[in-house]
Order: sequence, then C-alpha cells, then structure tokens
Amino acid sequence: MPSNSFGSLFRITTFGESHGLAIGVVIDGCPAGLPISLEEIQEELFLRQPGKNPYTSPRGEKDEAEILSGVFEGKTTGAPIALLIRNRDADSSKYEPIKDLLRPGHANYTYLQKYGIFDYRGGGRSSARETAARVAAGAIAKKLIAHFGIRTCAFVAEIGGIAMDPPDLKNLAALREKTLESPIFCPDEMAAKQMMAAIEAAKKEGDSLGGILQGAASGLPAGLGDPVYQKLEANLAYAMLSLPATKGFEIGSGFAGARMKGSEHNDTFEADSKGEIRTTSNFAGGTLGGISTGAPLFFRVAFKPTSSIEKEQKTVSTTGKPAAFKLPPGSRHDPCVAIRAVAIVESMLALVLADALLMNRLARI
Amino acid sequence: MPSNSFGSLFRITTFGESHGLAIGVVIDGCPAGLPISLEEIQEELFLRQPGKNPYTSPRGEKDEAEILSGVFEGKTTGAPIALLIRNRDADSSKYEPIKDLLRPGHANYTYLQKYGIFDYRGGGRSSARETAARVAAGAIAKKLIAHFGIRTCAFVAEIGGIAMDPPDLKNLAALREKTLESPIFCPDEMAAKQMMAAIEAAKKEGDSLGGILQGAASGLPAGLGDPVYQKLEANLAYAMLSLPATKGFEIGSGFAGARMKGSEHNDTFEADSKGEIRTTSNFAGGTLGGISTGAPLFFRVAFKPTSSIEKEQKTVSTTGKPAAFKLPPGSRHDPCVAIRAVAIVESMLALVLADALLMNRLARI
Amino acid sequence: MPSNSFGSLFRITTFGESHGLAIGVVIDGCPAGLPISLEEIQEELFLRQPGKNPYTSPRGEKDEAEILSGVFEGKTTGAPIALLIRNRDADSSKYEPIKDLLRPGHANYTYLQKYGIFDYRGGGRSSARETAARVAAGAIAKKLIAHFGIRTCAFVAEIGGIAMDPPDLKNLAALREKTLESPIFCPDEMAAKQMMAAIEAAKKEGDSLGGILQGAASGLPAGLGDPVYQKLEANLAYAMLSLPATKGFEIGSGFAGARMKGSEHNDTFEADSKGEIRTTSNFAGGTLGGISTGAPLFFRVAFKPTSSIEKEQKTVSTTGKPAAFKLPPGSRHDPCVAIRAVAIVESMLALVLADALLMNRLARI
Amino acid sequence: MPSNSFGSLFRITTFGESHGLAIGVVIDGCPAGLPISLEEIQEELFLRQPGKNPYTSPRGEKDEAEILSGVFEGKTTGAPIALLIRNRDADSSKYEPIKDLLRPGHANYTYLQKYGIFDYRGGGRSSARETAARVAAGAIAKKLIAHFGIRTCAFVAEIGGIAMDPPDLKNLAALREKTLESPIFCPDEMAAKQMMAAIEAAKKEGDSLGGILQGAASGLPAGLGDPVYQKLEANLAYAMLSLPATKGFEIGSGFAGARMKGSEHNDTFEADSKGEIRTTSNFAGGTLGGISTGAPLFFRVAFKPTSSIEKEQKTVSTTGKPAAFKLPPGSRHDPCVAIRAVAIVESMLALVLADALLMNRLARI
Repeated sequence: MPSNSFGSLFRITTFGESHGLAIGVVIDGCPAGLPISLEEIQEELFLRQPGKNPYTSPRGEKDEAEILSGVFEGKTTGAPIALLIRNRDADSSKYEPIKDLLRPGHANYTYLQKYGIFDYRGGGRSSARETAARVAAGAIAKKLIAHFGIRTCAFVAEIGGIAMDPPDLKNLAALREKTLESPIFCPDEMAAKQMMAAIEAAKKEGDSLGGILQGAASGLPAGLGDPVYQKLEANLAYAMLSLPATKGFEIGSGFAGARMKGSEHNDTFEADSKGEIRTTSNFAGGTLGGISTGAPLFFRVAFKPTSSIEKEQKTVSTTGKPAAFKLPPGSRHDPCVAIRAVAIVESMLALVLADALLMNRLARI
Repeated sequence: MPSNSFGSLFRITTFGESHGLAIGVVIDGCPAGLPISLEEIQEELFLRQPGKNPYTSPRGEKDEAEILSGVFEGKTTGAPIALLIRNRDADSSKYEPIKDLLRPGHANYTYLQKYGIFDYRGGGRSSARETAARVAAGAIAKKLIAHFGIRTCAFVAEIGGIAMDPPDLKNLAALREKTLESPIFCPDEMAAKQMMAAIEAAKKEGDSLGGILQGAASGLPAGLGDPVYQKLEANLAYAMLSLPATKGFEIGSGFAGARMKGSEHNDTFEADSKGEIRTTSNFAGGTLGGISTGAPLFFRVAFKPTSSIEKEQKTVSTTGKPAAFKLPPGSRHDPCVAIRAVAIVESMLALVLADALLMNRLARI
Repeated sequence: MPSNSFGSLFRITTFGESHGLAIGVVIDGCPAGLPISLEEIQEELFLRQPGKNPYTSPRGEKDEAEILSGVFEGKTTGAPIALLIRNRDADSSKYEPIKDLLRPGHANYTYLQKYGIFDYRGGGRSSARETAARVAAGAIAKKLIAHFGIRTCAFVAEIGGIAMDPPDLKNLAALREKTLESPIFCPDEMAAKQMMAAIEAAKKEGDSLGGILQGAASGLPAGLGDPVYQKLEANLAYAMLSLPATKGFEIGSGFAGARMKGSEHNDTFEADSKGEIRTTSNFAGGTLGGISTGAPLFFRVAFKPTSSIEKEQKTVSTTGKPAAFKLPPGSRHDPCVAIRAVAIVESMLALVLADALLMNRLARI
Repeated sequence: MPSNSFGSLFRITTFGESHGLAIGVVIDGCPAGLPISLEEIQEELFLRQPGKNPYTSPRGEKDEAEILSGVFEGKTTGAPIALLIRNRDADSSKYEPIKDLLRPGHANYTYLQKYGIFDYRGGGRSSARETAARVAAGAIAKKLIAHFGIRTCAFVAEIGGIAMDPPDLKNLAALREKTLESPIFCPDEMAAKQMMAAIEAAKKEGDSLGGILQGAASGLPAGLGDPVYQKLEANLAYAMLSLPATKGFEIGSGFAGARMKGSEHNDTFEADSKGEIRTTSNFAGGTLGGISTGAPLFFRVAFKPTSSIEKEQKTVSTTGKPAAFKLPPGSRHDPCVAIRAVAIVESMLALVLADALLMNRLARI
C-alpha cells in the first residue's frame, strides 16, 4: 500500500523533498460546502514556520501555499483539494561535501539501504519539511471539525527535562491563546522561561534538546473512533509516531497509569443535573474501548533531541570509512524540534478527528 | 474504511464476539508456499490462554482453532486463510443483571453511544477475546518472518510499579525461553516473584494492577518500514494502541529520550571488522526515519490496570440513574491484563513485520 | 493489496475452496440496526443453488449458512458479520486422475504459474463455489438498500444466441417475480422455452452454451457513485468482471451506443408535473458522469460458455506432454453458467449499491 | 474511500478542474531506480492533445508538465512523484450564460445533486481534462512495464459504425507505429479514411459520433492479476469504465463469446518446440481465472458519441424551467471523443499492468 497517504475517509497524500521544486498535498474526501480561504491555511503554516526567534531554525522559508483545485467561490466542492508550496530558500550546495557521510540520527543510511538511491539535499523526503504539507491540510481538517464544534490545542509540556504543571483542559480556547503568545508555544510562562534558558545553554554547547508535547481536543461527541483496530488512540498513536523525531505516545494516564490500581484508574460514571452522563475523573483520556466518551481527549508525545547538532561527531562514510561529521557552516537547524512540532501535532490531531467524524456517519442505518 | 482489518499487504480481518458462536480471522496476502500446521497455531494460542495459574482469569476456554481454507498439503496456497475458534465456555446468563449498568472503565457506554445497540454478553466485540484471533493469525506471521530470519520476543517488564532491569536483547531465543518459563512471562525471576506477590495482594483487596510490556525483534534486514506515514514505529504504535487496555507506546529511548541531549542520543555509526555498518549504541530502538537499521528493534507498551475488579464501584444506569456496580459472583477476569497480553503483543509485532517485509519487496525496480 | 475483499465501505472478504472444509465471508462496514435473519440469507442462496432442474449442475450442495457474529437479537450491531457455509457434497477423489492436466478454459494453469501450488480439488479457490459467499453477503446488502427504497433485479436476457426482447424496467418487482418463476431465470416465457431447448441440445452433444444477463435497479436517489474513478458504472464493471466466466459489461446503450449520434444519444432533461427533473429517454443507463441520475440503472454482462464440457478435448500436462482431456464420469457442471449467475449478478449489484449509498453520506458537510 | 485515486500498489491520485489553476497527479508506489525524463512524459501528453487536426477539439492547451518531486538525477527515488500541468487556455467566461442549464449528456445535473455545488467552468472536475493527468502518470507506468518487457498499444477500431478488420497482435510495435501515423489513431488506412469522412459529415450537421477502441499488450509473464476480485480483466474493466463517455468493455471474445459453444471457445493448450506451454487460439483474450496466461491481452471499449454538439437541444434549468440549450459560439469540443481517448486507454492499461506486476511480487514466499 503506497505509504505517502494518511487517513481513510479524509485522506491526505503528500509529496515533495526538502530541496526539490515544491512540496504539497492532495486532500481527498473533504465534504462539499466547507468554506475555506487561503488566509486560514497561511495562518496555520505561519505557526510552523522557523526563523521567528532564536529558539527555532533560522531557515527563512516563507511557505506560501497555493490552492490549485477543489475550492470554488470560497467553498469546497467535493473534488480533491491540492495545495502547493514552492521551495524557495533551499540551498543545496552546502550538502555537497557531506553527501557521502552517514549522518548520525538521520535517515540517509536507511533510505540508501532501502532504495539504493537518496536525494540527500536537505534531507530529501525524510526532512521535516514534509510536515508543512500536513499543516496545510490540517488547516482544512480544523475547519471541518470546528464546523461540528470540536476545538483542538497542542503545546509544549516539557523541554530538556523542565516540565510545566498539567494545565486545565476545560477552556481550550484560552489555553491555545496563551500557547500562541509564547515564543516556544508553552502556555506556562514560568516554565517557558526556564525552557528557553535551557535551549540557549544547549545551543551554546553546540547541542540540542528533546521535549514532550501535549495535544488536546474538546467538544467531541461520544462515538468517535472505531472499535478493535481503528481505535481513536490507535489512530492518534499512528499519526504521532509518523512524525519525524517522535519516540513515544501516551493517552490519558499513559505510562503512569500502568502503576495505578483498577479502583483508582476506573473513571466513575455519573449523571449531571441535566441527566447527561459523564465521568468524574478522566484517567482514560477521553476514550473507552477506542471510542470517544465526550470528555476532553488528551495525549502526550515524546520528541528526541534534534539530531543535527553543531558539535563534531564520529561517523563512517557510505562505504564504511571512519570520518568526522561536522555540519557545514551556516547550515540551519532547530535546537529543539519539539517547538515547531506544536503546529504539526495539532494538525495531525485535527486530521485524525476529521477522519473519525466522517467514519462515524457510517455507524448506524 | 471498515475497521476490523489490520495490515496492508499481510492483512487480517477478525470477527466474533466474546459470547457469540465463534471468533475467527481471515488472513489475506500470505504468500504461497509457507509451511504451516495447526499445531503451530495451537501453541501460540496456548500462550494467551487463561486458567493456567492464579495470575490469570479462571475462564477455561480451550481455544481450539480450525484451518478452514488457504492451506493445502501443509502449505499456504496464496488463497485467504480462515481460522475459526468456537466459543465454548461462554456463560452469558451472569451478565443479564448488569446489562443496563455502565461498567466503569469498559466500553459498553461508548458502543451504545456509537451504535445504539450492544451485544453486552461478556463484553461482546469489545472483549479482549477478539485478540485470540490476532494470536492465531500472528502464528502464521511469525512463520513467515522466521522464514526470513527474523526472531521476536515479548515479555513483562513491569507490574504494579515493580520493574525488571533492562535485559540483553542480543540473544532473543534465550530471552524468550526464560520468558516462557515464568508463570507471568517475566524473564527476570527475582522481579517476577515480587510482581506475583503484588498481584496476589491486589487480588485479595478485590483490586487489579497495570503493567508494562516490552517487545523486541532481531534479525531484521535494514530497510523495513516505509518513510513518512508507514514508518515502522508508527505501524507498531498503531498495532499496540489497538490492543484493549493500552495507554502508551515508546520505541528505543522513548519518553526518557526527550530528556537527553542530541550529542548523547545520536547513535554513532561504525563499521565492524567485516566492513558492515552498525551503530555503537541503540537509543533509536532499531529504526531511523521510520526504516529499520538492522539493529534490534525494541519498544514498550503501557497497560492500565484491569477494569473489571471485585470491589463495588459507583456508576449509573444507561438512563443515568445512580447505581452500585458489583461484578456477578463467579465472573472471571484477569487481575493484571498485561500478563496475557504478552502473546498478543508478540503477535502484533509479527504481523507488523510480516507486512513490512512484503512491502519492502516493492521498494526497488 | 489483498485481493479477496470487495467494496470500500460495505466491504466483504471471502474465503474457502470448492472442496475445502467450508467457504465463507466476513462483511465489515454494515451499519448497526439493520434487521437480518438467517432465512433471508438462505432464500438468496437457494436461488444460486444447483440441482433443481436439468438446466443446472446436479451437484446437490445445500448451502446452509451460519451467522457467526455481528447480529444480536435480530439486528446488526456494527460488528463484522461472519457467514459460514460448510462444504458437504464435495467429492475430491474424482479429480485425482486429472490433477496433472491443464484444463482447457480453466485456471489451474495460471494458478500454478502464479503460486507454484494449486488446490486442484474441484477448482479450489478458482471455483465458482466462491460466489455462494458473495450471494450470502449480497442478501444483507439487499436488505440495506431495500431499507432505503432501492429494488434490484437480474435475469437471463440471452442464451446460445437466443435473445428476449428488452423488458420494461418500470416495475422491477413484477419483473423479478416473473424471473423467479422461470427455471432458467428468463422472464420472457417464449424466449425461455427456446433457450431451454438449445441447452438440452448442447448437453446432448456434450457441449455448453454462453449467455447474457441483464441487471437493473430502481429507486436510486440521484447522487450515488463517485466521480472520476469510483464511478457507479466502473464499480459495476469491476464487480461483474470479477465473476468467473464473464467476458464483457455494458451499461445503458453499451456497444450499440458507439454507433449512435450525439443528438440521438443525449437523454433530454424535462421536469415532470411535480417539477421533478428526469430524462425523457435513458440511453445513459441511469448515470451521468458516473453518478446516478435517479432513472433506472441497467446493464448487461456477457458469460462465456461453460468451460467444463463432456466432449473430449486436447490439452497438455503440467509438464507439457500432449494428452486427451476427458471429464471424469459423474463429474458435475452447468451446461450454461449464465443461469446460476443470475443470483450472483444481482448480489454484486446490491453490494455495489450498498457501498455507494454509504459513500454518499460523506459527500456534503 | 476517497475516490480520486486509482491503483493499489502503483497508485495515482489526480486533482484539478478543467478551468482551475492546474491539474496534476501524485504517483505513489513507483519503485526506486526507474529512469524517467520529462520528455517521455511530454511525448505521451502530446498524443492526447487536441488541436492537431479537424478530427479533434480546437482547444490549444499545450499540456506542459512539471516534475515536482520523486525524481533525482534522472531516476525515481521511491518517493511520491508529483506532476503538475497548469491550465493556460481556459476561457471560462463563455460558460457563464449556460451555467444554470442542465447540459444534456453531461454531469452538471448529477454533481449538483450529489454535492450541492458545482464548478461549472468547462465541466469542472467532470471534464475529460482530468485524463491528461492519467496520461502523464501512464507515461511512467509504461516505462516501468517496458523495463520488464511488456509492450502496449491502443487504437481506434470503429467509429460511427465503420469498423476496421481485427489486426494482428503479434507485432505490437509495428501496430503502434501505424496507429501513430494516423490522424485518428486507426492503423487501418482504408477504414480510417471512411471514418474521417463520417466525422466530417457529422460535424457539418452539428452532430457527433461514437466509437470503439481496442487495447492490447504483449510480453506479459504468466501470473499477472489476482484471483477472485482483482482479476486482471476486472481491473481493466474498472479502469476503462472510469473514463468519461465509456459505455462498455469486453475482453477476448467478449459479447460475441456469449454466442459460442464451449468446444469452440475453450483455447487448447499445447507445448511449443521448446516445451513452453501456450494456447492455439486466444478467445480468452489473455487471461484465465483473472490471471495472465502469457498470451497477448486484448480488449475493447465502447465510447458514446460526444455529448457536446452544435445542434440546439431541449433541456431544463436547474430549477426545472424548460429551455433551449445551445453551445456558446466558439466553444470547443471533439466531434468524436474516442480519438483522443486512444492515449488515455493505453495509459490506463499501463497503469493496470504496473499494479499487477508489483502485486505479483507478493505471490510466493
């Protein structure tokens, strides 16, 4: 099964290499009648964009998207929506001297093993640049789920071992606002300051940091997610581990939940004053048996420290000769990939929910 | 997209409810010419079976499989392989009194919300009984990957907060042997003893425990896994989070990796005496850019404590009336679901690898 | 992509060989809440069954289905529906003497070339016996589309060159009734008589006949079928050419339409007295641009003459040695496969429409 | 399942409307290492292009493709290949006056019924312009199958009831050459002349003609095509009926085969002087049981007469008001769509075979 598509019913297919002519995405399965504007897509792309402060890569890519198809007079038509982003700030010449070296923590070794050929320029297809296409598609997914009352948020919860306190998920709009005010997308100002200091220290050493993101959604109807294989948390885990640099995923209580007892972990059902059923706690994280309960959905994603670092590293060439690996002067990378991943995690969450929403239309006769 | 299938090229479709006539699986895409016997399937099913000691459920289901199709004169023919397991020890009458109560930590609430109808008997389709079909299919996947030199193992790494030391993954055959000798599938005898004591204590309180499993594979060629979406770790995360009671997945360094620096986390490439390329460490856990490096693959899966507990719990009825929930006398459940999940995690790992092996045949011209 | 599944959202996966233990089907994607009984499935299977008169094979298979899962208290639950039919009247010993000969017009040559192994007994997986599973699944598809007001019919339109006059498609219920009264499923009594005489004559010569079936559906809403690839007629053509012995498909005017002029062929739009839009003719056959117009859908399918004939035929062995091929005495086959295909064509039509109905729920926001 | 993709393993996803910014295609699943140049793609696009003679539409679209991704240093890399064709000669203003009329034989009625919105300009997504993207992708599929020794050809076999004699399929290279020399892609010069006269006569009357194309392939290994559902002929039928204006498909003997006897129709197996097995005739058309035999594959496709005609036609508006429909002066259309469909049919054939070739790698252990 071709592997550059994501989603079953709201399906995206991305294409493009970091230093090729363009990257892009085709969205197939978006229902007709959804209002969508280029500005809304640009807004999301801007969140992922580097170069805005010292905590992200200085690459100055503008990420100007073009809507090539599928939108007519401001609304989706049911036809596939193609979005194109030309690569403009790609300077491949710098990569020439290191093209025969295996980059520690990078995929050029495995691509070569698999395909026997690799477009090494800027990481080619394995570059995180591909995620700009996901964010563009995510902008449309967000519009779709927002139309049905679902709100999403993603934020930095931990960097370099510095963790913020678990936030309140009741008001996601406010949480998102606070997140976007932060240069590193961490809604806890105090924690954010410490994180930024840690990033600066790591950069000084020519090193990089990892981090943990949290994603959340509210306003979900009960019933999203399919049992057995297409469980909502399985689709989310798949989505998150398909992102570059991710090492782990947990929903609700997560790994800590494995240390709890059943009597503690089971969320108690109760009926509120209007007779609506809810749970008094939410260790589950918003699903039971893979299907949304209506409670807020929340999960965490672990990102490894950026593989590209200034420090010299040992490696070998593609033919096995020992070599020293040093990034070319002026090469651009993020000191902590988790930061720019915030927009991407939120986009993937929106894509998973858009798919689940459509799937749910098929549940009953 | 129908949700009871798993896998792209080596695809399984399962069916059946806990207390229906039978459960089963159709395997479509297994190449022709693979020797397979009923005994090999039974052997795997036996590992998942309860009732062998006080650490698992007393349900005495024998899980006798029938190969209905796709195997001729001891070999697969390329036709779909259907495996059927009749339900024999299903006593649904006990569930009658609690059928209108929402079971804490269970899926009857969400199934009802989604479908408007629920086969409540023994958990119906949401029961972990479905996983017997996965294990039966996994037996064939294991044969396929073993044919290409891949070996797998899964074991209990932690229960109730008691963790074993990280084992050596160089000799998976020995590790698996030690695992199967343990009544709770934990290859570390000392840790296992403590875990068993903890389980007994929890049972006495009418409570349950969670745990963490580890899965591992060796003998993988470099090149398994597809970039971007069908990353090996993404497929594994999807597989594991599709299992009942799972709350988290991590590969290699996992969540701990998010607290490391790039200079520590990057695995250094070197060439061995025969000129073969390998890494000196394996924080990556066996993949780079979603594609296997050839190093051992390893990951961890978090299981929540069993939702079915003896203790009385508060809940409401399907119409929202407050009620006390108490399991019917003689109802059978596991004090720690993680234990029986060992066979299931290993099966899912084998299914993911079988799929990746076939997919890899398509990579080059 | 595994090849034993059919349909996107209402998806069936069949399994089983002609002389194996059983054949069966798993239906995944049927919405919850559809009433379904075993009797309704048996009724459809009976239509496909041989042995009722001299115009079909004397094989006395009873085709008793079992509903293994997915139905609870008479209604579908959203879980996969598994249907099992045990093979009872399979006598494989007769096939032993001819197992090393290439059967003219049969698939044992190509299966061997593809898989290197072939379950030759009774045609194995390539036998038309597999279609019993489609008919069982089709019974459920018919229930689903009938719930939304769609009616289907298939009938014999031509056998051995003897064609009936094109029938009126306005009253499909009446047409179906007439069809079921005919021993060869031809609603035109006069034509049917001639066809039966032709079949008897062919049988006497140890020969077989081909034929043409027509399928039709009414009560379709406008909007079924997806543009570009999943056009309604494309899905129908795929469905029909996936049946054994089919050589052609045409919708509406079909091949004859290629000889018409645009001014003749274009169906004129008009509004009826209630203002509802319809066309004055229906050369299109019920679709425009791959999407149903609301007019009756109709198409024709060509079946080659049965490959199994009594007459001796020249052939070679699997190793290329010249040989005479003569069916073993007492072997059972149809003088004209088109007859029993009536139930199958109607089932495939229902499956295609069930899928299109579900797909259509996704068209608009 | 999103409907703008075609193919399982060699999968294309097309996008774009007739008068939008661009049309294009993403090819996912093309193996790495295949040499491909822009010129090869342009060459195929040129065959489909109108405006070269009076027998096709005067629309002067140049169809200049851009390879956006997936090709590096002249070879495919295994990454998705995106091809973009900007629309340049699109003049939408002409369509303004007729945008509220239902076009006889066109899809604007059904699109509106399905989606509630329609990009009417030049037929929008339902325009045959989409097929340019298929031809671009087909160019790469042709390269892939040619690498494995498979050759294809498509040609006009009949127009306006004037049919050429069945050609010899032994030398497809020569047949293709003769086809490309003909202004209407008919390799039989005498028949072609009559067809051209018929087309000119129809044009004079403001009318249009239908036609029948034949497709053929040689050099296939035995074993292509999957049994049961993904039969080679089923995939071909699906491919062909997914083309605009098609009304029928037949393989080998086709509808005429339904009038033959089994003893005539069965192709006799024999061994040639080298011991290789072949059949003495080829009524089957190159497959048995859905799997290629190694004999030439051939099939026919019926195209209705072009729906766009100069003559005035009756119709109604979208609100049901009676109206006269007359194409705007200067609007451009083909007098016989079958002609330009030759390149498209050949492309779809190549796409089906590329998919089958890859699929066949999975057949045996």
